[in-house]
Amino acid sequence: MNLKELRDEVYEANVRLVEDKLVVLTWGNASGIDRDKGIFLIKPSGVPYAKLRPEHLVAVDLEAKVVEGTMNPSSDTPTHVELYKAWPEIGGVVHTHSTYATSFAQACLPIPCQGTTHADFCPGDVPCVRALTKDEVEEGYEKNTGLAIIEDFAKRPPMECPGAILSHHGPFTWGKNALKAAENAVILENVALMALLTRQINPAIGPIPAHILNKHYMRKHGPDAYYGQK
Amino acid sequence: MNLKELRDEVYEANVRLVEDKLVVLTWGNASGIDRDKGIFLIKPSGVPYAKLRPEHLVAVDLEAKVVEGTMNPSSDTPTHVELYKAWPEIGGVVHTHSTYATSFAQACLPIPCQGTTHADFCPGDVPCVRALTKDEVEEGYEKNTGLAIIEDFAKRPPMECPGAILSHHGPFTWGKNALKAAENAVILENVALMALLTRQINPAIGPIPAHILNKHYMRKHGPDAYYGQK
Amino acid sequence: MNLKELRDEVYEANVRLVEDKLVVLTWGNASGIDRDKGIFLIKPSGVPYAKLRPEHLVAVDLEAKVVEGTMNPSSDTPTHVELYKAWPEIGGVVHTHSTYATSFAQACLPIPCQGTTHADFCPGDVPCVRALTKDEVEEGYEKNTGLAIIEDFAKRPPMECPGAILSHHGPFTWGKNALKAAENAVILENVALMALLTRQINPAIGPIPAHILNKHYMRKHGPDAYYGQK
Amino acid sequence: MNLKELRDEVYEANVRLVEDKLVVLTWGNASGIDRDKGIFLIKPSGVPYAKLRPEHLVAVDLEAKVVEGTMNPSSDTPTHVELYKAWPEIGGVVHTHSTYATSFAQACLPIPCQGTTHADFCPGDVPCVRALTKDEVEEGYEKNTGLAIIEDFAKRPPMECPGAILSHHGPFTWGKNALKAAENAVILENVALMALLTRQINPAIGPIPAHILNKHYMRKHGPDAYYGQK
Repeated sequence: MNLKELRDEVYEANVRLVEDKLVVLTWGNASGIDRDKGIFLIKPSGVPYAKLRPEHLVAVDLEAKVVEGTMNPSSDTPTHVELYKAWPEIGGVVHTHSTYATSFAQACLPIPCQGTTHADFCPGDVPCVRALTKDEVEEGYEKNTGLAIIEDFAKRPPMECPGAILSHHGPFTWGKNALKAAENAVILENVALMALLTRQINPAIGPIPAHILNKHYMRKHGPDAYYGQK
Repeated sequence: MNLKELRDEVYEANVRLVEDKLVVLTWGNASGIDRDKGIFLIKPSGVPYAKLRPEHLVAVDLEAKVVEGTMNPSSDTPTHVELYKAWPEIGGVVHTHSTYATSFAQACLPIPCQGTTHADFCPGDVPCVRALTKDEVEEGYEKNTGLAIIEDFAKRPPMECPGAILSHHGPFTWGKNALKAAENAVILENVALMALLTRQINPAIGPIPAHILNKHYMRKHGPDAYYGQK
Repeated sequence: MNLKELRDEVYEANVRLVEDKLVVLTWGNASGIDRDKGIFLIKPSGVPYAKLRPEHLVAVDLEAKVVEGTMNPSSDTPTHVELYKAWPEIGGVVHTHSTYATSFAQACLPIPCQGTTHADFCPGDVPCVRALTKDEVEEGYEKNTGLAIIEDFAKRPPMECPGAILSHHGPFTWGKNALKAAENAVILENVALMALLTRQINPAIGPIPAHILNKHYMRKHGPDAYYGQK
Repeated sequence: MNLKELRDEVYEANVRLVEDKLVVLTWGNASGIDRDKGIFLIKPSGVPYAKLRPEHLVAVDLEAKVVEGTMNPSSDTPTHVELYKAWPEIGGVVHTHSTYATSFAQACLPIPCQGTTHADFCPGDVPCVRALTKDEVEEGYEKNTGLAIIEDFAKRPPMECPGAILSHHGPFTWGKNALKAAENAVILENVALMALLTRQINPAIGPIPAHILNKHYMRKHGPDAYYGQK
């Protein structure tokens, strides 16, 4: 297998999580997939980021079997598998315990869309995925975590809102590749922080008006988007 | 056109926004104008700061036409145009999504003048500019954003309070040049943070007494100012 | 005595407390024990971390007597002594005044288990140890602080929850060695921060459901743990 | 005049304020006095810290006259003069607009003694000095600011609590020299932050019990102090 370019990118995505202060100790993981081969690379479980090298990344197929690498993949690997299987349009997945997104997750509340920074990311609240039942946890905690996320997105494409938070747990984000999934984790953390502060400053504030939300979302993601370079 | 000095300064102003932690990812832009030529330089749209070089800055005239540069200028360019056209005394404009100023903007409340740090910046609250109507957004979102700011300052000179926050959005600041506009963005962020904390510590606190506010504003900005070097 | 390896490790644990921003000025100390010799190394009292060298660490026996070193050991040394004497399974002890864990301590409330990050650390609240009485303070403040911690853990093994906060004071953590004790201080600080934010976002939130708490604790610490490498 | 050593120390104290993140832009100043000569060195007014060099420090006598240096001294110089004149036991003075101490000052409330970190600094609340009257501001704002601080300490020695916050303004700290005054500014900021968080976690919490407060203050500052090295 020649996964060199993917390996470098997934390594960089993992490192960025630490540089952007989304990850403390070993609390997070990034993966990226080669759709032709049906194989993704993911951080090994419990390895400190300071010691992580590109060659430590573990290659896993879509049946959750390790196909290359000597270390155990992240314990969250079955969650990544389900997301890759359900959503062919995504190329990267990131999980962190970043402070503000995790605090909304622990509070079991969606991250409300309070401004244009959030509207540039997705058109509405970032969903808070329901907690698993006792049976689901026992039957397969990490796999069913993935299925609960997918259930939450049953009625819309996953790229419309490339992230979610899990009740009592923390955020997952995704994107066209691992680096974009990591960037979306940065955005999620920042909009969570500002949503918290907004409510503290004005507890009576409502959501952003629809015409402003739509304008920002569409100028960046719509068919006539004009944000950024061509 | 010889805009070399201006280019270096506008580049530095953009970089400072990141160094001072006012900008995450691509969420911000600084511009500076050459009043003789009627041309300003502004950050290109959606370019990551780590990759930004002085030569990427786009030269734009006061009719919002690109006159030099191969990249798209910031999507907020029409807002900058309106401010430069309305206010001949300003030489630089900055927009960020900095955490605390943006949170006040999302809360749709002015930043209250709670102490001398704020009084050193401007004599009273930092205004929260009204949200645009649906028609205004459709007719020309970025241009009308500029006009709404100007409307808010109809009864006083813009340099009296060199910044404002936009409802549901975030801060704009200005100054005699791009670096001063960037410095004002730093000040706005810090006074926003301290205003938030002040209210948390003492929800019943009133505004700073007028005689203390005036003393601080005048010792720095009045005709007999004695703060700083001559 | 040959304590070179231990000395390097205890020095590194002390330095990490500063690098991980748990310690300001001289507000903290780490120690590690050589169980064969019955001697532990601890930071000298009141020495700024910037000037701390491995050779400054003071060797102390389990009767709290200095056996090597020319400086005074940390004023908290008698607390470390009691923990090492009571709990043979621990090899390192850390004390800090880290911001969020200390704030819970000052609030005299346990750190509630609000999510999986906390459940990965310990199965339930991090206890807030009772304040000492006037007599206990006068009779031997630092020694009795250790005894109060031990009293709190009378009905369970100390490694089940490798840390506690002391009413009105701050956190103590422990582990199989000094570096693990320092790592546990990092975890305690982060779960304290997120518990605070969780309650601010949703004051009505209850604790994490037992089946999710147990799953996370057991997948990392149980007999069939599968987190990390073998 | 040979003030070289003092110059280096006062310069270092000023630099530390920035390194310890107590000062943004030009918002702060440190001074240190040579009691034999009756002259103190202080930061020049409005000079950015990045450009500050030791030779820029201005020498001022106790009648507030510049005796050496080509720049204007800090606009707060008359406050420093009053403190040096009233309190012969102090050798350094620091003023900042550090975030948390300033927020308590803006809230016009003392910083409550909520734990041992604070008790290690001073035995009780850090006082919030009253606001000046309109007449006092007009007659001599900076000089009368110093006199108001001194008035607040009329019944106890200034070294018992080496700092105070000024209503609507921010903190002043002092110490046996400029570096100690800067260190006290770090402590004040951290105890202010933790006092704020403590109240957020438990709004009903009372002050630290007197026997614990006294123990910590006395083990560090009493006649039988045993904290630190001899």
